[in-house]
Amino acid sequence: MKKFAAALSGAEIQAVCGGEFRGGEQLRITSVADPAEAAADSVVFWEQDRCLQVIRGSRAGLVICPAEKADLLPGRSLLLHPRPGFAMLKLVSWWLESSAKKLTPGIHPTAVIAPGAEIGTDVHIGAFCVLGPNCRIGAGAVIEAQSAIGPQTTVGKNTWLYPRVTLYPGCVVGEACIIHSGAVLGADGFGFALEDGVQQKIPQVGNVVIGDRVEIGANSTVDRGTLGSTIVGDGTKIDNLVQIGHNCRIGRHCILCAQVGLAGSTILGDYVYMAGKSGSAGHLSIGDRAMVGAQGGVTHDLPADGLYWGTPAIDARVYKRILALQRKLPQIYGHYRQQAKKEEL
Amino acid sequence: MKKFAAALSGAEIQAVCGGEFRGGEQLRITSVADPAEAAADSVVFWEQDRCLQVIRGSRAGLVICPAEKADLLPGRSLLLHPRPGFAMLKLVSWWLESSAKKLTPGIHPTAVIAPGAEIGTDVHIGAFCVLGPNCRIGAGAVIEAQSAIGPQTTVGKNTWLYPRVTLYPGCVVGEACIIHSGAVLGADGFGFALEDGVQQKIPQVGNVVIGDRVEIGANSTVDRGTLGSTIVGDGTKIDNLVQIGHNCRIGRHCILCAQVGLAGSTILGDYVYMAGKSGSAGHLSIGDRAMVGAQGGVTHDLPADGLYWGTPAIDARVYKRILALQRKLPQIYGHYRQQAKKEEL
Amino acid sequence: MKKFAAALSGAEIQAVCGGEFRGGEQLRITSVADPAEAAADSVVFWEQDRCLQVIRGSRAGLVICPAEKADLLPGRSLLLHPRPGFAMLKLVSWWLESSAKKLTPGIHPTAVIAPGAEIGTDVHIGAFCVLGPNCRIGAGAVIEAQSAIGPQTTVGKNTWLYPRVTLYPGCVVGEACIIHSGAVLGADGFGFALEDGVQQKIPQVGNVVIGDRVEIGANSTVDRGTLGSTIVGDGTKIDNLVQIGHNCRIGRHCILCAQVGLAGSTILGDYVYMAGKSGSAGHLSIGDRAMVGAQGGVTHDLPADGLYWGTPAIDARVYKRILALQRKLPQIYGHYRQQAKKEEL
Repeated sequence: MKKFAAALSGAEIQAVCGGEFRGGEQLRITSVADPAEAAADSVVFWEQDRCLQVIRGSRAGLVICPAEKADLLPGRSLLLHPRPGFAMLKLVSWWLESSAKKLTPGIHPTAVIAPGAEIGTDVHIGAFCVLGPNCRIGAGAVIEAQSAIGPQTTVGKNTWLYPRVTLYPGCVVGEACIIHSGAVLGADGFGFALEDGVQQKIPQVGNVVIGDRVEIGANSTVDRGTLGSTIVGDGTKIDNLVQIGHNCRIGRHCILCAQVGLAGSTILGDYVYMAGKSGSAGHLSIGDRAMVGAQGGVTHDLPADGLYWGTPAIDARVYKRILALQRKLPQIYGHYRQQAKKEEL
Repeated sequence: MKKFAAALSGAEIQAVCGGEFRGGEQLRITSVADPAEAAADSVVFWEQDRCLQVIRGSRAGLVICPAEKADLLPGRSLLLHPRPGFAMLKLVSWWLESSAKKLTPGIHPTAVIAPGAEIGTDVHIGAFCVLGPNCRIGAGAVIEAQSAIGPQTTVGKNTWLYPRVTLYPGCVVGEACIIHSGAVLGADGFGFALEDGVQQKIPQVGNVVIGDRVEIGANSTVDRGTLGSTIVGDGTKIDNLVQIGHNCRIGRHCILCAQVGLAGSTILGDYVYMAGKSGSAGHLSIGDRAMVGAQGGVTHDLPADGLYWGTPAIDARVYKRILALQRKLPQIYGHYRQQAKKEEL
Repeated sequence: MKKFAAALSGAEIQAVCGGEFRGGEQLRITSVADPAEAAADSVVFWEQDRCLQVIRGSRAGLVICPAEKADLLPGRSLLLHPRPGFAMLKLVSWWLESSAKKLTPGIHPTAVIAPGAEIGTDVHIGAFCVLGPNCRIGAGAVIEAQSAIGPQTTVGKNTWLYPRVTLYPGCVVGEACIIHSGAVLGADGFGFALEDGVQQKIPQVGNVVIGDRVEIGANSTVDRGTLGSTIVGDGTKIDNLVQIGHNCRIGRHCILCAQVGLAGSTILGDYVYMAGKSGSAGHLSIGDRAMVGAQGGVTHDLPADGLYWGTPAIDARVYKRILALQRKLPQIYGHYRQQAKKEEL
């Protein structure tokens, strides 16, 4: 459960979220919660039909649900809304905005800032940060404690780095991004050439360029390009423990779930969705809006708009059909053995 | 090999481990080792029958082995014990306990502690740690160097954080836990809603609650709940590079091996075992004592007590049968082609 | 594109790389680039035949290509070289070497160095590093900011640690290694014994020993041995987010791509190649020069020199045949159903 400072009436919540409030004037809501842990001052929302019983048993003061579910919740204060999850999102965002204790702007006295660093207005730089020569931090940015910001890097306006982020030299992060703790941007791409029995390092002299409004999860890694840039487009969201190889070019508004791995020079269009633990071989393209299922392994170019699964990743319907038929292998094999024996006679 | 301060006689080792010592009174043991690198003052233990040759060739002064193996090691000093590995565990633990150079309690002068932090007795806080407002650190806890402990967090008694751990605001870690270097607890859950062509962030205002005696491996990540808590039960052990999504509820005494990934809202019972690189889709349940094989992908609820493998994870025996029959596909397909040709005629 | 300080003529480039220069005396090259972003002072190289069009349209001043491709690029300044990629590697390495702004040797005043630490000549130690008692740092080593170097560790000559690296107590890193940001060497191996319903920790008292010229990627983890050492051989290269379990012994000049995971006590020969996301079960051996395909799961010993894929990993040709035949399952099953129906009649 999350409690906020401001208590809201049903009418005020309707004003924030839209929809239609049905309930008493006395109602005051000051927290959001899962139905099972809700209190009388909590709002909960209808996620799926199977949560009906839990909501009925909940002590929640207000339920956000679609109008057509209202009859299932008699005697409850309701906010009728066609998209309860979205209404909840707006409400929580409003609360966060109104109660935000922004980290105070200012540079912690322990931070080590190299000469030539340009720090914008209203920037927060936490304890034990190290900023290299000629880095540029845009106005309103937050660099939390213990981050390492390399020379010649750029961090855009209002971007938020959680504690312990590393930006290698020359990396560029856009505006309004969120980079979670432990993420490493710009480490060397993984390139070696076997020469006289020794893995000789191919110098990695490119950089990483992150667009605007990108989110990168905890302990994820984005490698620098060999010569050019590794690029992540505007609005793309990357979960934890994801690996982006050197020279990848990821489009805009993509979703990369946890533990995804893209080998070098993979090109993703816009709105591509890669489910958890999926990956791709290098030097190939995945088209706009393509979706790759969990653990899927992409081994060749994938056209736009498809749904793909398996390794090698193919049309998900075909793959599911194959999975189903694999279950029939005992029957098929039994029949084959029987036939083969007959023929032997 | 690991050398300890205290040299123990056979009788003393018997007193620590149980079992029955057979050997000379002069014997003094002061190190544990793998058989191949053992010295005359080393104890080694019988792990598997196939290690017999290595043990015979070893210079080890003492071998811990089951009574029924004694005849295979004539002329050796032995500690006969029904469970050699367990005896070794007790012995090493005794040595560690007796020789432990605990980190000196005290707060390093460089640590930055915000107002309102409550620090228990005998706590060690290392160099360059940052502790946020109103965090609470239980008695005997160790926070090694360069960790970031957010506001309103709780760290239980005798819990040990290795260097460079991040706890986001509001996280709760129980007593006697071990959190390895680079772990990140409480980063935002990965939730977005596509709205007017933009991935809009769903606020993540919950937290992470870790029980007692939990171990979390290096660079693992546990995301905060969206509204409620992401929960890890007492005694559960999590290896390196594991991802736990938002709102997961993991039971007690589970084992999650390296690179496991659980999508949001996965529920694990007690004593669940997830082998390396296995994972689960979100919003499903895995029953008590269920075991999922390496790389297995759970796509639907799994009952208790079973052994599961593959993607989608199914009964492991069935899956192994299917794997075996896949090897027969060349024969099966050859026969099918033959038949199909005959019918064409 | 990467610009360097020194502008080189064609003859000078020929002297650095070998091969044969064909072009004007006035040519001066000062940057390397991908063909699409190259400028008149850029050199690009011929990677694959399919890049011909891009090179033709490029503004690059110099193209490194094989002699037999020269006719395809009329009017261009060329460096004819049998291995363009290797020539480029030598050229970039020369530029880097000649322009290297090495981090100034010296110990940052904020670094906390315990008594008994031995620091060689010309060592750089960055801000907020913590070095434990009796650690030894070899001459010319670079320890960038915010790293945690445990007691009794050794870092060899000219080894480079990027920011935020953790070495647990007793770890040994060889000479001329590169350890990227966020890597954790020496965390406890993952060993527990279920005892009276509780996962009892098996003490992990070994260490990690890294050879010379090893590279370890960002946020990768190498666990310490239970009793002995976890070993990585000379010249082996490890990508990001890789997990090496306790007591693994990895040979020389191996390549471990991103997100690879090796369970405890895996033994790798020399020149083993493990593609992205592949893994192995514990206590098994993979022979010299064996290659395991992406996502492959090794479940039994693999002989030297083979190419393996799938889970369980088998001969890659056999596995590809099986994959192809799985696509035939709809036909095979259809035929089986037809036959079975006939027989029922």
